[in-house]
Amino acid sequence: MLRTHNCNSLNIDNVGETVVLCGWVQKTRDLGGMTFVDLRDRYGITQLAFDVKKNETSCFEARKLNREFVIQVKGLVIERQSKNSKIYTGEIEIEVNELTILNRSKTPPFTIEDDTDGGEELRMKYRYLDIRRNPIKDKLILRARVSSESRRYLDTKGFIEVETPYLIKSTPEGARDFVVPSRMNEGQFYALPQSPQTFKQLLMVSGIDKYYQIVKCFRDEDLRSDRQPEFTQIDCEMSFVTQEDVLNTFEGLTQHLLQSIKGVKPKRFARLTYQEAMEKYGTDKPDLRFGMKIVEITDLCQKKGFSVFDNSELVAAINVKGGAKYSRKQLDKLTDFVKTPQIGASGLIYCKFHEDDTTKSSVDKFFNEADKKEWGNIADSDNGDMLIVMAGEKNKTRKALGALRLHLANELNLRDPEKFAPVWIVDFPLLEWDEETEKYHAMHHPFTAPKKMDLILLEKEPEKVRANAYDLVLNGNEIGGGSIRIHNKELQQIMFNHLGFSDIEAKEQFGFLMEAFEYGAPPHGGIAFGFDRLCAIIGGQENIRDFIAFPKNNSGRDTMINSPSFLSQEQLKELSLNSKVNKKVDNG
Amino acid sequence: MLRTHNCNSLNIDNVGETVVLCGWVQKTRDLGGMTFVDLRDRYGITQLAFDVKKNETSCFEARKLNREFVIQVKGLVIERQSKNSKIYTGEIEIEVNELTILNRSKTPPFTIEDDTDGGEELRMKYRYLDIRRNPIKDKLILRARVSSESRRYLDTKGFIEVETPYLIKSTPEGARDFVVPSRMNEGQFYALPQSPQTFKQLLMVSGIDKYYQIVKCFRDEDLRSDRQPEFTQIDCEMSFVTQEDVLNTFEGLTQHLLQSIKGVKPKRFARLTYQEAMEKYGTDKPDLRFGMKIVEITDLCQKKGFSVFDNSELVAAINVKGGAKYSRKQLDKLTDFVKTPQIGASGLIYCKFHEDDTTKSSVDKFFNEADKKEWGNIADSDNGDMLIVMAGEKNKTRKALGALRLHLANELNLRDPEKFAPVWIVDFPLLEWDEETEKYHAMHHPFTAPKKMDLILLEKEPEKVRANAYDLVLNGNEIGGGSIRIHNKELQQIMFNHLGFSDIEAKEQFGFLMEAFEYGAPPHGGIAFGFDRLCAIIGGQENIRDFIAFPKNNSGRDTMINSPSFLSQEQLKELSLNSKVNKKVDNG
Repeated sequence: MLRTHNCNSLNIDNVGETVVLCGWVQKTRDLGGMTFVDLRDRYGITQLAFDVKKNETSCFEARKLNREFVIQVKGLVIERQSKNSKIYTGEIEIEVNELTILNRSKTPPFTIEDDTDGGEELRMKYRYLDIRRNPIKDKLILRARVSSESRRYLDTKGFIEVETPYLIKSTPEGARDFVVPSRMNEGQFYALPQSPQTFKQLLMVSGIDKYYQIVKCFRDEDLRSDRQPEFTQIDCEMSFVTQEDVLNTFEGLTQHLLQSIKGVKPKRFARLTYQEAMEKYGTDKPDLRFGMKIVEITDLCQKKGFSVFDNSELVAAINVKGGAKYSRKQLDKLTDFVKTPQIGASGLIYCKFHEDDTTKSSVDKFFNEADKKEWGNIADSDNGDMLIVMAGEKNKTRKALGALRLHLANELNLRDPEKFAPVWIVDFPLLEWDEETEKYHAMHHPFTAPKKMDLILLEKEPEKVRANAYDLVLNGNEIGGGSIRIHNKELQQIMFNHLGFSDIEAKEQFGFLMEAFEYGAPPHGGIAFGFDRLCAIIGGQENIRDFIAFPKNNSGRDTMINSPSFLSQEQLKELSLNSKVNKKVDNG
Repeated sequence: MLRTHNCNSLNIDNVGETVVLCGWVQKTRDLGGMTFVDLRDRYGITQLAFDVKKNETSCFEARKLNREFVIQVKGLVIERQSKNSKIYTGEIEIEVNELTILNRSKTPPFTIEDDTDGGEELRMKYRYLDIRRNPIKDKLILRARVSSESRRYLDTKGFIEVETPYLIKSTPEGARDFVVPSRMNEGQFYALPQSPQTFKQLLMVSGIDKYYQIVKCFRDEDLRSDRQPEFTQIDCEMSFVTQEDVLNTFEGLTQHLLQSIKGVKPKRFARLTYQEAMEKYGTDKPDLRFGMKIVEITDLCQKKGFSVFDNSELVAAINVKGGAKYSRKQLDKLTDFVKTPQIGASGLIYCKFHEDDTTKSSVDKFFNEADKKEWGNIADSDNGDMLIVMAGEKNKTRKALGALRLHLANELNLRDPEKFAPVWIVDFPLLEWDEETEKYHAMHHPFTAPKKMDLILLEKEPEKVRANAYDLVLNGNEIGGGSIRIHNKELQQIMFNHLGFSDIEAKEQFGFLMEAFEYGAPPHGGIAFGFDRLCAIIGGQENIRDFIAFPKNNSGRDTMINSPSFLSQEQLKELSLNSKVNKKVDNG
């Protein structure tokens, strides 16, 4: 080793020892007779002291060190005069005898500090420098711990990690595949997996019983700011289980992660049906760190002469704690928010409950004090609170109130990143109607098992059939989802019929899985966690990008390595490909 | 859970308990009044007993069960009459009260037995059934353990697992890349990584200090029987280390694996220089489970009138223990072996040392007893042994003897799969001459650091420069390889010059890494283990395919899912691709 210790391992107990350290120059301070250098590595910072009286050469050399030079020093651990209680090494410094410059550095394009002066684009291009900064480095270390603790838990529970292939087959349904031309099989292509779904089901047919894998998946979607073309899943599947078994096992995993990494042990996770979640939170990803549930006041509001309410399928409200002091301007801003295209409401109605027991609303013309107090009773409003009421088509109104609820929670700082509120959403609808194709689609996927008791509805009211499908939601983000699968060929056939697949289409798209199911498929079910997001939420953030070592930007580009890029004509020829856009070739 | 226990968890202590088991029907035996079923799951086998007197219905149903049906049974644990001491559950059986058929099975295309009647092709097509067989299932479980124990060791040693991207950039040098067309960046392509080499070096520049990853890599090579287009590596890199540190750390990893998984603790690993390995074993991947080293007898053999020896650069021999009893026919076969194209020798010479102290060789015309005894002395031959002597150009003769040595060891059963003989091969040449391009190529890769003391030779005798590069060889297979990297820009420039790269070429191919190196790259080095092979060797096998859940065949095809396959015209259009071979489209 080029060092005896790292930069976070020496303290007052080591005084008198001769040590060798390596690292990067964080900063230098030249005080004339003394030069101090903060030496940094992954583990921490140690102060180096160069005394011109004791070692003139080293001291002169130290003065010439620039930020981010890589150096090796040999010296004596001594007690520091002005101590720094914030860091482990803060009571000592190294009186340097020998200084070796291991490598020089140009001035970095942004400061390697917790608060850097670099913009995101610049930091992405020099990601290898960005990772030197604690906020990024710590997130990658956290990610490694989440991965390690996930594996520890699943190994203990008897799960086997099995690697499934990356070069698989393109299927036309679902999201777009990334494809890989095969040179050895001219004109043919592999596809990169969108998830190992079929392979994990095959592993259940194989008798593997409990499978997991932390695995990269690929989806060629138009990217939103928080999507990556490649992302990581914790992918799991179990045989001979009911939905309850899957929920318990992965509630256990999540608790283990929260406890081992954040030191918090949440109680048994809340559970909401999809229906309840939509009614109370206007979303199937409710943030339960705070209340502000949606309450329905349709019956109370109608037939009082206010046509907006009278003509609405639903009138519903949320109670804003302390909202009575919202100004006109603040209310206008809320109205603007619900009018944005992504919410699409035409406006909102407020009702303030003042401390003096009076009320004030934007619909006082139609409703008297008693009416409004009744609303307040239902919503548990106290004096000082404010109700926001919205009305219209059921689902749209719920979604609008759900969005407003989150918006208000952000404004009111109710979304504490160090608080964790997990909730299982269960009883998802099996099917959803697709306006475009005028067909029912599987809400989860075509192998999801319907609830037995609902099968009777499949013919006449298919939209009412619930699935044995579940999502795990943490702090308003879906971190996992899964289902019990159909393992029975006849039921699968029925499902395919309802999804509008002909026998030939079903065979084409799911042929080998269907064939496998004829050789003794066990009852099975599973779940997949979005690993990038899981890490972000555990890290108290919502943006996944910082939890990925080398992420891509919104155009799917890696600006650091400048990829994707053009291929040479020879490469294209070997692959029997004509790229239509071939004018520019960047390595000819 | 659909079961209370698995099929390997009940024994005599559980007698009297009512249990529920699930699994596959391994076999049924109908003895008239009694029907016995072996129920199998991942964990083991439990015998089910159906007594027609006690439960007629179940017994009749049981008689109709076919192999691989999936069933659930409820019953009482009772002591068995004829016990089976070979299995954990061998003293009990389940007296079944309730039998539920969870799923039926067609007759599998081959028997699900340790010794199956299925050929490899059939088993690959129905891999999900093949995995039900213990020999395959156990190999996948072993693989999971090797992975888990590798992580445990590396985590303990302070390594951080960092996921590097799969969609990267194609570089023209090296093996062929698999490429991925980008839809969002028209005409441009990503490449799948052949290894995370550049990213792990960037992580060292990032100050991650100790990195590892168990990661899929991709190489579009013409496949040999034991190559896969996608394969797994344990990829590692460390900063501020010397070669010695890397060797010690990963000797520790290998020892941990051998001890935790096989219960053997090898002593400190042997070390051979590349030169020694070539001289003594004729290969840089020597199998040290047995002796049979190559000895050189050139000086002893020449000028005795045998022109073959006289005209040879090298005369060398290996001693075959007990080989004196080799028949004429056996010797002819050995001669045939060395004459095969992959060895390419023109023949071999034998010299037998008989028990009666006489000798017999194929060159008795030129050499007397004393000559031959002298050879025997050098080769440590005893009476009863046989020397095989070969002669010719140095490297070719060594390689031929090395190949023959392995061939003989296989014949003589000297390659015990339960014995582990690891050896580090060090001091590899930095460069190798490429006949085709008439240029020196980096033997490892262009970032491998030369030994400082050899730098002086770089101008005049570049082939003599040794690298800080090393391979770990286990039982005659390279399981890992790595090097200390160049971290100094000037030295890197010199290396590029010697490898015939112009500045522009170097920049094009390694631009972003070279740029990163200007911002304070630490001294660093690492290693990558071929994970598939490592698992195979630990599992006592040489063929990696059975250690991969869903391997591809020699044409790079997955015959189970029938991939690669043709894309639809719409997919090709979206990707701005014209595949030249587009006549056949398989989902139109």
